Amino acid sequence: MNKTAIGIDFGGTSVKPGVVRDGKIIEYAERIPTRHHANAESLLGAVVRAVEELRAKHPGVCALGAGLPGIVDSVNGRVSVLTNVPGWVDVGLTDLLEERTGLPATIDNDANAATYAEWLFGAGRDALNVVMVTLGTGVGGGLILDGQLYRGSQLGAGEIGQMTIDPHGLPGHYGNFGALEKYVGNNQIAQRAQALYRESGLTKSEEECSPLALEQLANSGDAVAREVWEEVGFHLGATLCDVVWLLNPDRIVIGGGVAKAGEYVFGPIRKTIAERTMKIFHEKLEIVPAVLGNDAGIIGSAALGLLKTAVA
Amino acid sequence: MNKTAIGIDFGGTSVKPGVVRDGKIIEYAERIPTRHHANAESLLGAVVRAVEELRAKHPGVCALGAGLPGIVDSVNGRVSVLTNVPGWVDVGLTDLLEERTGLPATIDNDANAATYAEWLFGAGRDALNVVMVTLGTGVGGGLILDGQLYRGSQLGAGEIGQMTIDPHGLPGHYGNFGALEKYVGNNQIAQRAQALYRESGLTKSEEECSPLALEQLANSGDAVAREVWEEVGFHLGATLCDVVWLLNPDRIVIGGGVAKAGEYVFGPIRKTIAERTMKIFHEKLEIVPAVLGNDAGIIGSAALGLLKTAVA
Repeated sequence: MNKTAIGIDFGGTSVKPGVVRDGKIIEYAERIPTRHHANAESLLGAVVRAVEELRAKHPGVCALGAGLPGIVDSVNGRVSVLTNVPGWVDVGLTDLLEERTGLPATIDNDANAATYAEWLFGAGRDALNVVMVTLGTGVGGGLILDGQLYRGSQLGAGEIGQMTIDPHGLPGHYGNFGALEKYVGNNQIAQRAQALYRESGLTKSEEECSPLALEQLANSGDAVAREVWEEVGFHLGATLCDVVWLLNPDRIVIGGGVAKAGEYVFGPIRKTIAERTMKIFHEKLEIVPAVLGNDAGIIGSAALGLLKTAVA
Repeated sequence: MNKTAIGIDFGGTSVKPGVVRDGKIIEYAERIPTRHHANAESLLGAVVRAVEELRAKHPGVCALGAGLPGIVDSVNGRVSVLTNVPGWVDVGLTDLLEERTGLPATIDNDANAATYAEWLFGAGRDALNVVMVTLGTGVGGGLILDGQLYRGSQLGAGEIGQMTIDPHGLPGHYGNFGALEKYVGNNQIAQRAQALYRESGLTKSEEECSPLALEQLANSGDAVAREVWEEVGFHLGATLCDVVWLLNPDRIVIGGGVAKAGEYVFGPIRKTIAERTMKIFHEKLEIVPAVLGNDAGIIGSAALGLLKTAVA
């Protein structure tokens, strides 16, 4: 697949287009801040202009892909809602992109795009069945099953953050209780760390308890930070045990801020899964950090655009 | 697929061969009790004789499939252990069956065979993504994802019974805690019912608390039996919520004795999933009882045998 494509990562605050070749971003366009655009039409205009500028420099571009947050109807190419863009109501994005750029286009959920990128070019490479978990304010995920992106019947699959640790636990957003996201989301981690520091007589701001700060604290030997990561790793591991029993994957890829804590969090994840599953389920299972970082959305979207031209 | 094949269901106590056409068993061979055979060679001889007798009556038979309990290496056609057959050590069953019958053969895990049968000919028909749960002494499962049997990287996928309801709950067989099987296995249901009857001053034997007995009691208005099913349904529903968030299936098929309790158990399952997942995950989700009963193993094994001849 040594073709060139453009990937567009629609985030909550900005849209990031880039040119991708061989799984690498060879040129980034300037970020397009969503809040500068009062409606979908204005934002789309800016996106199409950025695409045209990139194509002028890279005439070999032969496909376009976009990754967006939330439920994306990748079959019909429609996106019902886009965060921070009030005029965005059920936009037929694939058709609009194809009409205005003349390129074959495809759209997908951003977690699916990132999963596809990590599988093709990153930490999931050469695995048959990959479970991707993305950790941030929310907890998302994506699945590669039998060498294909698995989307589910309403294209909603992979919501690992809504899986339940404890059916009598903290209430979640969707009537669920004890959802993983309520234990390992960035805010929950910060609150838990603040509470533990308070117990040992220390007052820390939420910023001082960000994943990055807690990673540095853990590295410098801070016992509270290490305890927080141990708990986060146990909660992730316990939920992933269910995923492992159900799907028997050969690779679990963990991305996002929390994954930066390295062995402080990967150690307890691996230990929990090894202790709580049958040997054949964990002895060859690799649990690794994502490697593409914030580029995964652009790279995966571009690759899905190319996949569509290959399949069509 | 209007071809004829033989399916062989290897159970814990007997082996059941049958001739399958159009998803129906058109002739059963006599059951072969495993304990009459001291070793694998003797049992295999009896199985091959039964196959030859069936073929003499149905010369159109063009493939053979076998379903076996436990971990079955369906890729290499090997079965390491067979319950109640002491001489059975890592048998290359597919090759042996092919050599001795001259028919193309395939083997698979029995839950996979049953799942495949329900999907092709039973309660999972015409669905794209099917989760099958089989309820008995143990709790097993199988998955059809994107229209294909999904087996996992070590062919172990679908172990829904080992998924955790409560990570601090009752210890399971594999270092796991609070496994679904420990709440909704037949023995656990009987013990729970006995305990509840005891609280209301009644002594009941384990037999009087079998799934069938509890179904009849619930039908006759018995409040304790209904409470037991309500609890079983909640535990199944809570675990299936995790499966739904992860896989977003369009059909869940529930088989085995417990499924016979009908709405007493399906009602709470549906309610729990509807209350604890996002609307798009449950509004089109069908949760239905299996329809092929004990025939599913034979039918599915035969169909997998035919699938192999179609793919090869």
